[in-house]
Amino acid sequence: MRFDPEDFVPAHFLWTFDGGVATITLNRPKRKNPLTFESYAELRDTFRALVGARTVKAVVIAGAGGNFSSGGDVHEIIGPLTERAMPGLLDFTRMTGDLVKAMRACPQPIVTAIDGICVGAGAIVAMASDIRLATPEAKTAFLFTRVGLAGCDMGACAILPRIIGQGRASELLFTGRVMTAEEGERWGFHNRLVPREALLAEAQALAHGLADGPTFAHGITKTQLAMEWNVSLETAIEMEAQAQAICMATNDFRRAFEAFAAKRTPEFEGD
Amino acid sequence: MRFDPEDFVPAHFLWTFDGGVATITLNRPKRKNPLTFESYAELRDTFRALVGARTVKAVVIAGAGGNFSSGGDVHEIIGPLTERAMPGLLDFTRMTGDLVKAMRACPQPIVTAIDGICVGAGAIVAMASDIRLATPEAKTAFLFTRVGLAGCDMGACAILPRIIGQGRASELLFTGRVMTAEEGERWGFHNRLVPREALLAEAQALAHGLADGPTFAHGITKTQLAMEWNVSLETAIEMEAQAQAICMATNDFRRAFEAFAAKRTPEFEGD
Amino acid sequence: MRFDPEDFVPAHFLWTFDGGVATITLNRPKRKNPLTFESYAELRDTFRALVGARTVKAVVIAGAGGNFSSGGDVHEIIGPLTERAMPGLLDFTRMTGDLVKAMRACPQPIVTAIDGICVGAGAIVAMASDIRLATPEAKTAFLFTRVGLAGCDMGACAILPRIIGQGRASELLFTGRVMTAEEGERWGFHNRLVPREALLAEAQALAHGLADGPTFAHGITKTQLAMEWNVSLETAIEMEAQAQAICMATNDFRRAFEAFAAKRTPEFEGD
Repeated sequence: MRFDPEDFVPAHFLWTFDGGVATITLNRPKRKNPLTFESYAELRDTFRALVGARTVKAVVIAGAGGNFSSGGDVHEIIGPLTERAMPGLLDFTRMTGDLVKAMRACPQPIVTAIDGICVGAGAIVAMASDIRLATPEAKTAFLFTRVGLAGCDMGACAILPRIIGQGRASELLFTGRVMTAEEGERWGFHNRLVPREALLAEAQALAHGLADGPTFAHGITKTQLAMEWNVSLETAIEMEAQAQAICMATNDFRRAFEAFAAKRTPEFEGD
Repeated sequence: MRFDPEDFVPAHFLWTFDGGVATITLNRPKRKNPLTFESYAELRDTFRALVGARTVKAVVIAGAGGNFSSGGDVHEIIGPLTERAMPGLLDFTRMTGDLVKAMRACPQPIVTAIDGICVGAGAIVAMASDIRLATPEAKTAFLFTRVGLAGCDMGACAILPRIIGQGRASELLFTGRVMTAEEGERWGFHNRLVPREALLAEAQALAHGLADGPTFAHGITKTQLAMEWNVSLETAIEMEAQAQAICMATNDFRRAFEAFAAKRTPEFEGD
Repeated sequence: MRFDPEDFVPAHFLWTFDGGVATITLNRPKRKNPLTFESYAELRDTFRALVGARTVKAVVIAGAGGNFSSGGDVHEIIGPLTERAMPGLLDFTRMTGDLVKAMRACPQPIVTAIDGICVGAGAIVAMASDIRLATPEAKTAFLFTRVGLAGCDMGACAILPRIIGQGRASELLFTGRVMTAEEGERWGFHNRLVPREALLAEAQALAHGLADGPTFAHGITKTQLAMEWNVSLETAIEMEAQAQAICMATNDFRRAFEAFAAKRTPEFEGD
């Protein structure tokens, strides 16, 4: 797949690209931006393509019309799944898991802008991002239990406890209840609450700040946050000694020193 | 061991069973409900028996008389232990560890209702539960250091940091100091604070809500929360793809879809 | 290396030793206590020597002159690093990582007293401690990204998420922004905020409290907090059964029981 961020016109969501920042907007606002088989697959393919897209330096994910996402659509996804045999079910759960894997594997930091409804697979997409901004109106729920399923969807039993703690994650995953915006901020799910009218602009400003930074090093930060998930402290420290030594061999590190020595602000180029 | 939750009369704690919810009450209120060699063993055996007890769908643990538990009794446990040789000491620490293993291995979510004193092994039982409600009067302490022991008791050095963070857990385990109820709620140990007079009713209402849900799926959620503890992100996501595909093959998933399509509330049966 | 805490006169920081508590003071206040190649190495060697220094029972780390540490000095460290080839870069990142390994491997609990600037490698030293007290004026930043580097420095991508959660750690490591003192307390990085004039005394009082406790058991707590980092729950529980059985064979455990039986306060001797 030849992927050109300047020319990309996805079929199932909106895509804009400006100053190194790509913005993905889930855009079926009348249905609160549900995910479908096709949009899952296209999101997965897009994040996979971002691995080689050097000009894309940060990503924002948002929803249209005052909601983030209502998750997997009841009629378009849950209904058809009840008809599938096991191989077809596993095809689906692996495809959705592959979206999370692709979001963690791309080098770009992902900032999610969460307003209104953020539930089911929508909550998972938020959880799988790097940084989350939300409005006071955001309502986040891992409501798989409400449709007869387990809380272990797309990595939630592993990832959510690392973000908000094992006890709070257990309650949300067993009960499916809404986490309010205020709880989300107190618990470390949302990095910051911002007013609805400022949400997208603040998320994009944060992403532009990251895009203007040492993006090769950001990619290493992202890799290490994922790779050190379950290694020993000794191993993590040696991994970081190697990873940081790589970054010290970049031009951005030299540029930063030269700028500091000259009392200038460094300009990074990502190499 | 043939285990019938309707007829079970334990020797060392109270047991009630109603609507799929079992309530265990630690019941030596004059001594603030200490644990003894016998009550540890009976609790361990009970949670082991719950693995095969399909009609038990959720468990509440509470203490009688305004306290949760004072932990291992000084005279009944600590005194005798000071007389034991190493094999006997390891018999004891393995037995207590086996209680935590059994609490994590049973499929039922465990809701703990914490009032007053919750210390030592009592704090561990609370920590090893899935969801914790507490009163503003709850005082929780991992006070092993006060009796000359280490903070690593029954899994505390692994589990407590995942609930409240490594820094807060380190302080509690090194100093043995009390975590107040308000701290416990802020830090994610207690899921919610409720007034003393409402505590047991709220814990049981929460447990009944879970018992009325898709209990097979709840058991899978519990399994995954334990099994994904120390696996890589890639592995966790594949584990969840398989585990959730299993849940999509249940009747509860089909029932949920049919109920949504008919605009009814789903009724789950745990199969 | 023969290490005598009574006679130790380090070249690159201050050292005092009183009542079992060693206090390390980073002491180049005009430059906000930066670290240099030499001070990194001496700190590493000191923490390595503490493994065998039985009379040292707890450690306090502080900074002189109203700041904790400005981290690796731009002119003394970053400049020279930009001239090094890869083997020399890896020598440096491994040396700094070895400081964190040595801080985690010594049996003494480490209490850090954080005032003012606490950035870069300074923030890492604070992160690698067991308990952190800070003043309302403390400003902590993992600002590696500002010099063109990744957030993965000396274990930060593994350790910081376990202290403050994956989402908050991601933001701090990607952006390099300051964590205020109030945020640090809310998020579990700082165990407590104390006024500037009381900081060192409170940190030392906490360390003396630990030094008066069962220090052999404290060393086991510290070992287990590090060793159980990435093992399964089953493994952690068996590890703790063994580790706590060891502590039950100590004289401190017997002393505690005898003191409780006699209604005295136990006096621990660390054996």
